[in-house]
Amino acid sequence: MLAEYDVIVVGAGHAGCEAATAAANLGSSVLLITMDMNKIAQMSCNPAIGGIAKGQIVREIDALGGYTGIVTDRSSIQFRMLNRSKGPAMWSPRAQCDRMVFSAEWRRVVENTDHLDMWQDAVVGLLFENEKVVGVKTKLGIDIKSKSVVLTNGTFLNGLMHVGRKQEMGGRSSEPASLGISEQLKSIGFEVGRMKTGTPARLDARSIDFSVMKRQDGEEDFHQFSYLTNHVDKELIQRPCYITYTNPEVHSELELGFEESPMYDGTIQSTGPRYCPSIESKLTTFAEKKEHLLFLEPEGETTHEYYINGFSSSLAWDIQLNGLRKVPGLENVKMYRPGYAIEYDYFAPTQLFHTLETKLIENLFFAGQINGTTGYEEAGAQGMMAGINASLKVQNRDPFTLKRDEAYIGVLIDDLVTKGVDEPYRMFTSRAEYRILLRQDDADVRLTPRAFELGLASQERMDLLTEKIEFRNKLIDFCKEFGVKPKYINAVLEDLGTSPLKQGMKFYDVILRPQVHIIDFIDTILPLRELLESIPNRRDEIVEAAEVLIKYSGYIEREKLIADKLIRLERIVITDRFDYTSLQSLSTEARQKLDKIKPETIGQASRIPGVSPSDINVLLVLMGR
Amino acid sequence: MLAEYDVIVVGAGHAGCEAATAAANLGSSVLLITMDMNKIAQMSCNPAIGGIAKGQIVREIDALGGYTGIVTDRSSIQFRMLNRSKGPAMWSPRAQCDRMVFSAEWRRVVENTDHLDMWQDAVVGLLFENEKVVGVKTKLGIDIKSKSVVLTNGTFLNGLMHVGRKQEMGGRSSEPASLGISEQLKSIGFEVGRMKTGTPARLDARSIDFSVMKRQDGEEDFHQFSYLTNHVDKELIQRPCYITYTNPEVHSELELGFEESPMYDGTIQSTGPRYCPSIESKLTTFAEKKEHLLFLEPEGETTHEYYINGFSSSLAWDIQLNGLRKVPGLENVKMYRPGYAIEYDYFAPTQLFHTLETKLIENLFFAGQINGTTGYEEAGAQGMMAGINASLKVQNRDPFTLKRDEAYIGVLIDDLVTKGVDEPYRMFTSRAEYRILLRQDDADVRLTPRAFELGLASQERMDLLTEKIEFRNKLIDFCKEFGVKPKYINAVLEDLGTSPLKQGMKFYDVILRPQVHIIDFIDTILPLRELLESIPNRRDEIVEAAEVLIKYSGYIEREKLIADKLIRLERIVITDRFDYTSLQSLSTEARQKLDKIKPETIGQASRIPGVSPSDINVLLVLMGR
Ligand SMILES: Cc1cc2nc3c(=O)[nH]c(=O)nc-3n(C[C@H](O)[C@H](O)[C@H](O)COP(=O)(O)OP(=O)(O)OC[C@H]3O[C@@H](n4cnc5c(N)ncnc54)[C@H](O)[C@@H]3O)c2cc1C
Ligand SMILES: Cc1cc2nc3c(=O)[nH]c(=O)nc-3n(C[C@H](O)[C@H](O)[C@H](O)COP(=O)(O)OP(=O)(O)OC[C@H]3O[C@@H](n4cnc5c(N)ncnc54)[C@H](O)[C@@H]3O)c2cc1C
Repeated sequence: MLAEYDVIVVGAGHAGCEAATAAANLGSSVLLITMDMNKIAQMSCNPAIGGIAKGQIVREIDALGGYTGIVTDRSSIQFRMLNRSKGPAMWSPRAQCDRMVFSAEWRRVVENTDHLDMWQDAVVGLLFENEKVVGVKTKLGIDIKSKSVVLTNGTFLNGLMHVGRKQEMGGRSSEPASLGISEQLKSIGFEVGRMKTGTPARLDARSIDFSVMKRQDGEEDFHQFSYLTNHVDKELIQRPCYITYTNPEVHSELELGFEESPMYDGTIQSTGPRYCPSIESKLTTFAEKKEHLLFLEPEGETTHEYYINGFSSSLAWDIQLNGLRKVPGLENVKMYRPGYAIEYDYFAPTQLFHTLETKLIENLFFAGQINGTTGYEEAGAQGMMAGINASLKVQNRDPFTLKRDEAYIGVLIDDLVTKGVDEPYRMFTSRAEYRILLRQDDADVRLTPRAFELGLASQERMDLLTEKIEFRNKLIDFCKEFGVKPKYINAVLEDLGTSPLKQGMKFYDVILRPQVHIIDFIDTILPLRELLESIPNRRDEIVEAAEVLIKYSGYIEREKLIADKLIRLERIVITDRFDYTSLQSLSTEARQKLDKIKPETIGQASRIPGVSPSDINVLLVLMGR
Repeated sequence: MLAEYDVIVVGAGHAGCEAATAAANLGSSVLLITMDMNKIAQMSCNPAIGGIAKGQIVREIDALGGYTGIVTDRSSIQFRMLNRSKGPAMWSPRAQCDRMVFSAEWRRVVENTDHLDMWQDAVVGLLFENEKVVGVKTKLGIDIKSKSVVLTNGTFLNGLMHVGRKQEMGGRSSEPASLGISEQLKSIGFEVGRMKTGTPARLDARSIDFSVMKRQDGEEDFHQFSYLTNHVDKELIQRPCYITYTNPEVHSELELGFEESPMYDGTIQSTGPRYCPSIESKLTTFAEKKEHLLFLEPEGETTHEYYINGFSSSLAWDIQLNGLRKVPGLENVKMYRPGYAIEYDYFAPTQLFHTLETKLIENLFFAGQINGTTGYEEAGAQGMMAGINASLKVQNRDPFTLKRDEAYIGVLIDDLVTKGVDEPYRMFTSRAEYRILLRQDDADVRLTPRAFELGLASQERMDLLTEKIEFRNKLIDFCKEFGVKPKYINAVLEDLGTSPLKQGMKFYDVILRPQVHIIDFIDTILPLRELLESIPNRRDEIVEAAEVLIKYSGYIEREKLIADKLIRLERIVITDRFDYTSLQSLSTEARQKLDKIKPETIGQASRIPGVSPSDINVLLVLMGR
């Protein structure tokens, strides 16, 4: 450890690891302080990365030069592209991971990052000077100085765990809570709230009858999370998941425990994630439903430990067990541990700029679960953005933010800082206005050039991207120019179940048909084959990218137009232009909200709940527009 | 989890894992309860197994069918046979391990053991009925019933950690302490004491200049810990250790911290391991020494984390760092974390029978660090013996114990229950009267047949042993019978630097020469080569075993004779024969000690400190001998 760092990151969870590596890779000297170096990037809940909208975020993190994608690829024991039957805006990669390998691989990345030191200890407070943060205080009694601090404490701030009527302080099962930080920040004016999340029981596979469940295997194709090519040394053994269901008997068993449940007896007051509810919440919210879907997911390459997705619970342990034993296939199940709920402190994210720096204290950044989000991916994305901006600020460089039409990460952060949260925030495709622009296949096209310019994405990434764009465009041009004749391709078309051509046309127009894919003609169209074979890297991905652009060009263009229009509004900067409290022509609510959020642009102002279009007009008029 | 188990093992450390697997492999239903399933068999201190006398213990655990040896072989990143220059009684295998792989491999073993369930939770108390233990109480509020309980809480019972003046409760860095158990046992009459141990800082290899240190590589030969043959799927990358030294400058820096040290200001009262002292103890105990040896040991196959053996400390973190920075090669060193000391509760082991069952409470067994020992190997050995005996007792079978001339494990347990401890007990070869009988090469010969009879060692082990003995004896017979002529072997002898033969003699007599090894003649003596080539498994090991028997037969025979004589005394059972308090012919001290320890045999009685040969004579006379 040195006497002073440019950036101190507190907590080596999903947010902290991305923050620390990003800041260090931008050349700042970084210290990553975490309670337990054996639990780096521990997956607190299910061992899976990605999924709907979250998968896109991981692709974006990767495109920016982050590591969640690389680590996921290295620890994946099952990969699937969700929503393949829908349009490409919805395609979402998801991987089951080996929990221990995931953590070990993240540790390897962190350890091998230049300018990045690690220190095992707990931060108990921050050091301030003139309303700026200047370092941290640790449990070992050390004051460590720094030019900026990124807090990523996850669920640890005053964490309180519940299983039935049993309560215990802790940041996660068998890990101590973090005390001191929220009290200190509250005392200097930060708004601190309380949220809740939960996790299901872990089961011993040897006591499960998988034969009565539906098996779900992964996909064996070219997809992965990272846009890099040679980052996986050793593929892990692939493992299936299993699907089963609850039933009324299960529900009755569980209901016996409601009286003793901390959710119902008023012990737990804070809000949990509506979209990831506990099984007891599902039983009350959807009382009419006779069954709920459950996934049995392996926790690793060889372990017998299974995660039971859909059965998160803070009911008493025996109620959980009795309920589980009524599930088909789990009649004799043995638990390794019961599910539990955890309550923890978060900071209302409207207290942040888009850079994730706090408005109250200069050089202090917040990222991850403490901003009211839930999910590894959301945490990682924020960590990366906070790390980047902490580093840029130290170096007196311009901040780096992403727009809503550029990235889900842009949507995420804009939602957080503009709208705030009233329940744990997770990403959905529906939160994005420009979904077709934010696809998983082109996060590199959207973001790598920006990250490369910043000095974060490597030359290798940039070269791969340049090559991808070159061949993608070549392929599109080929499709546009190449004419196909009925006699050569009709046989293929018929095989694909689509009507034969009556006359020649451009290959491009054939590809527009939903049933048809470029690759189907590799044996029929020789010049196509030659072109495809000339692609040195990531051929399948490039073909997919080209095809998406061809098939969805109409939608894409339309969304771009709308986005451009709105972006003009977005770009009108209003930071520090108004004293909102004195603008009597605004509605009272708008006055208050605008004063609280202090939006940076008209676009952001327009998204604040309670600020109406007429309020926006008032602002535009005042600016002479 | 079931409603009731035969055996509950508390704590999945080195003792608990051996206890649980041994009990389960003997057919008892076992529940292993531990606080954190991600930290199974965590190496609290340095990532190394074996060493002098400890390596022999691991070989013995293996010979009995335990797993420490197998797990070590699977996670070894450097292997060495210590003391090769001394006689074979002193040869001691030692391996550096990858800390994470070690834990993962133990977890794999535990998970795949039949009859063995796991439960993540903390035990807070025991359940009793009629002075027998009948189960445990957990933090989650569960009462789990069992026919016996094995406690293996390690350093967790009321653990209190120290770094300079900073103190914190905990069982190990960033893990909670275990509260409740010692208080409960104290209240029913158990003698509870307090001990102390410590660990050094962990360093970032990237900040170390290894070029000024002495490199120490492992050995590339056939030795390993397990007597099995195909238990390692994948060998890990082998890594070197490095040797450096402290100097007067280091010492001065450290001395600056003595005033604030918990060791010297009276905060730490309990006794630490005399043979594994902190650097500050070394500076005071050996004030005249100008330097102390330090080993830099890697913590894993790929990590940059290094353990600095010899620098254990509870001085303030900055004092540790300043001291380290005066060590050649560590001028710019960065720590990952400082060293610390920990104080914890233990139970005076004289409260135990040789089976490790407590005298006070039936069916309650203690093993590992809580019996006042230190070291993974000592813990594993006790765990195994406690697990075996807990299981045997449930099954109404005879207890299983080892004698002092049978195994270091026998010496260990006899020392503990007979002499008790006044500082953390670690094994040394000097503790054994019959060292030449307790060699690392023949633990299988000594113990596997007994474990096989018990049902613990597998058929595979027994077959390998039978084969070993067969070929070992064939080889010895060959040496005895085969005559060598000067003209054929003198060239070899000269190469080996030993005088040529003047006349023919038995090959056996040639082998008696210290410079000469059987294998040296593999190219010269054709029938020898044929015999060696006919050995299907573990050839080098078998040759070594034969050679040891040839070269040291004199010593071995002598020790056997002495042992046999003493064993006759040992075998005279005196359990429950005397009311010592009424035997006025005994010395007062002997009366008290004998009454407290209640020795099982005359042999044990004779080893109790304070019981003199004349006291023993009194007993023998009273028994009519
Ligand atoms: C029980 C449980 C259930 C969950 N269920 C779900 C779910 O169903 N769905 C979902 O999407 N997400 C779930 N999550 C949330 C998910 O784990 C988090 O969103 C994600 O881990 C957040 O990442 P993070 O980096 O913000 O924090 P974390 O992953 O929590 O990491 C925080 C890190 O900071 C360290 N730390 C904290 N305080 C200090 C300090 N003072 N000093 C030093 N180090 C410190 C911790 O040791 C830890 O390493 C759950 C979490 C828990 C605990
Ligand atoms: C800081 C430190 C330094 C050390 N230095 C040395 C050294 O220099 N040389 C040396 O030879 N040895 C050293 N040791 C000791 C060595 O680690 C132990 O001898 C060895 O680990 C003992 O094994 P064990 O199985 O008895 O206990 P441990 O390895 O401590 O395992 C105990 C297990 O029990 C679990 N547990 C405890 N209480 C409960 C409960 N109530 N409910 C459920 N689970 C519970 C814990 O989680 C843990 O998994 C050191 C230990 C520490 C902590």
